[in-house]
Amino acid sequence: MVGAGFGGLNAVLSLARARVRVTVVDRRNHHLFQPLLYQVATAALSPADIAYPIRAIFRKQENATVLLAEAGSVDRSARELVLSDGRLGFDYLVLATGARHSYFGHDSWEPRAPGLKSLEDALEIRRRILLAFERAERETDRERRRALLTFVIVGGGPTGVELAGAIAEIARHVLVREFRSIDSRESSIQVLEAGPRILPTFPPDLAARAQQALERLGVQVRTGCAVRDVAPDSVVAGDTRIAAATILWAAGVRASPLARSLAVPLDAAGRVRVEPDLSIPGDDRIFAIGDVATLDSAAGNPLPGVAPVAMQQGRHVAENVKRDLAGLPRRPFRYRDKGSLAVIGRAEAVADLGKVRISGFLAWLAWCFVHILYLVGFRNRAVVLFEWAWAYVTHQRGARLITGSIDRPHS
Amino acid sequence: MVGAGFGGLNAVLSLARARVRVTVVDRRNHHLFQPLLYQVATAALSPADIAYPIRAIFRKQENATVLLAEAGSVDRSARELVLSDGRLGFDYLVLATGARHSYFGHDSWEPRAPGLKSLEDALEIRRRILLAFERAERETDRERRRALLTFVIVGGGPTGVELAGAIAEIARHVLVREFRSIDSRESSIQVLEAGPRILPTFPPDLAARAQQALERLGVQVRTGCAVRDVAPDSVVAGDTRIAAATILWAAGVRASPLARSLAVPLDAAGRVRVEPDLSIPGDDRIFAIGDVATLDSAAGNPLPGVAPVAMQQGRHVAENVKRDLAGLPRRPFRYRDKGSLAVIGRAEAVADLGKVRISGFLAWLAWCFVHILYLVGFRNRAVVLFEWAWAYVTHQRGARLITGSIDRPHS
Repeated sequence: MVGAGFGGLNAVLSLARARVRVTVVDRRNHHLFQPLLYQVATAALSPADIAYPIRAIFRKQENATVLLAEAGSVDRSARELVLSDGRLGFDYLVLATGARHSYFGHDSWEPRAPGLKSLEDALEIRRRILLAFERAERETDRERRRALLTFVIVGGGPTGVELAGAIAEIARHVLVREFRSIDSRESSIQVLEAGPRILPTFPPDLAARAQQALERLGVQVRTGCAVRDVAPDSVVAGDTRIAAATILWAAGVRASPLARSLAVPLDAAGRVRVEPDLSIPGDDRIFAIGDVATLDSAAGNPLPGVAPVAMQQGRHVAENVKRDLAGLPRRPFRYRDKGSLAVIGRAEAVADLGKVRISGFLAWLAWCFVHILYLVGFRNRAVVLFEWAWAYVTHQRGARLITGSIDRPHS
Repeated sequence: MVGAGFGGLNAVLSLARARVRVTVVDRRNHHLFQPLLYQVATAALSPADIAYPIRAIFRKQENATVLLAEAGSVDRSARELVLSDGRLGFDYLVLATGARHSYFGHDSWEPRAPGLKSLEDALEIRRRILLAFERAERETDRERRRALLTFVIVGGGPTGVELAGAIAEIARHVLVREFRSIDSRESSIQVLEAGPRILPTFPPDLAARAQQALERLGVQVRTGCAVRDVAPDSVVAGDTRIAAATILWAAGVRASPLARSLAVPLDAAGRVRVEPDLSIPGDDRIFAIGDVATLDSAAGNPLPGVAPVAMQQGRHVAENVKRDLAGLPRRPFRYRDKGSLAVIGRAEAVADLGKVRISGFLAWLAWCFVHILYLVGFRNRAVVLFEWAWAYVTHQRGARLITGSIDRPHS
């Protein structure tokens, strides 16, 4: 099992009673609850609130061993996983290594417009957002001050929408009256989306409601606006150059490079095109699940890269392995879509639950409930619930820290 | 006001109603509650739990302006504070910049044996402690595995004692049954103290009780044991070389380098020898307080470098400035010692309250109470209280994260 995200975790837990030995390899010591990562990036939660030690999860699962190690490639002929410091033989291999952001060939943009996939990413984004206000307070030049108070988010999917809403709240509520020479409410927060609308995986009416909610928070949403260049302190979108000290990337993902070493067909984002039973083409002992894999739904569209797909796939792989051991035929994977949620801000969210579509306070409550429910561990649930309640009442944020040097340059 | 630690914070807050304008300069955006820093280093608390944004503290104090900036030196003739990116004139200057650890001239030891003064230090120490267990799990060589499970703390003051007790708890309770090839309870935790006993500022009977409590936790305490060398993976103390992957420094402090630029007499640790009114010799408009200053008590001993001294000095400086403005003579500073506390571990602490000396559970309760009381902000108090209660009941720790690369070398 490579990767202890939503997919890997569920696969291993589902194998608890199987007569197999499972080795979990992850280069982190913690499982990360990625759907709340944007709250770490916007100072609402601490890293430890959305992370849980992998070892502690499997303490009582005696057939599971956890290794903190970096997997570099898969040696299919030797049936070994190649680690940065050793090799590990396998009978079955499950690849659940997820994805990073993709800059569509412009890797030089990464330091200028960081994406949000790891805790380190989140802390770097938090540092940049908070530092921009601090620098603006000390800046005497009007133009430069304006750039420091301009926040551009590239990409209008759920992460982009969540980041934009949270930054708007920081500017309009959290920091108000704390500065003496700037008014944080004059900040400009812009979402640039190349497609015709934000939240493209949601129904158009919900996406429109999300856009209105963002605009009520003071966020400018620009659709049909492809980014052509990212410079250290500006972004070129369509024909205009926007001067902005803080540029965040929420536009594209690329599957973990481990997929390439399998030497099987990949899609444009580097994902393995898996068989209906989630194994890779031509090797039924190797599976790929979650964001490192792609599979079409019954309707013919690729399954979305969301946590529920990974979780269900993890459980499905475990099921198929157990069926192998029992001499039964494997079953094809079918995704049970229970709906999608995206949060915009305080008491604002949209929820697509199939037949029912809701927005506003009720959708926000549903979002809070689902996210608390899927967090691992009582401590994390209790702390996150407390932080949300406290933030809701006081308009404050619990983790407004700038760590690392204040003089560290961006790029 | 340079520095928003305990001294600086109290000085500025005490000037809230004075007819002065105060500029608070700090190179961090947060006030740090240093007495609980060891709990961040040992995965019990998150950084945000013991830090509070300086701006938020002074939001309503309209005569206070907060600048995030690095102060490099004091230009006494120009009456200016020299920042890394500008200058700031002053009528009065209060230096409250604290101290860093001191390696007594062996600066090459620092990367091998980090000290604990900032949040970055604490996260680095947390990373090293947790990573040592992870590496031991994968190490096949007996000797190297033993070194990975050996933790040496140099210095038997309160910080050294707190770190040793917390690491012993991690090894003996928190991580138990999580590893498959090592038993974390076999770890060796050693405190090396050059003097004749640990906790030298406490009465001998309390220090002896603290040592017994540490030994009950399985910590080896070696007194009269001066460190002669620190190598990347070992430490030489007296005649023996101890192989240890994790070496932590809690032995000495050195005042902030800003003190040197004042061109006044300093003590051996680089602290300004201040006048009884806390001003520096020959310049009654410049004050130094807290760990950057030294002053003898009424009994003739230097005041200890603890939070209560800094807090009382901060308030005293504010008082003397207000007396200047009112045309009244200044008052000499007198420290009101309310006692000292040091915590060893779960339900174990020692308290020297002058006439009363207690140890064990009651002292631990007193310690918890005082530390919760002095934390800034309701949110931090509530979260810390919850984390402690949860840890007390479950023997777990809320912030067991390794961040940063797992392959990053030590030195």
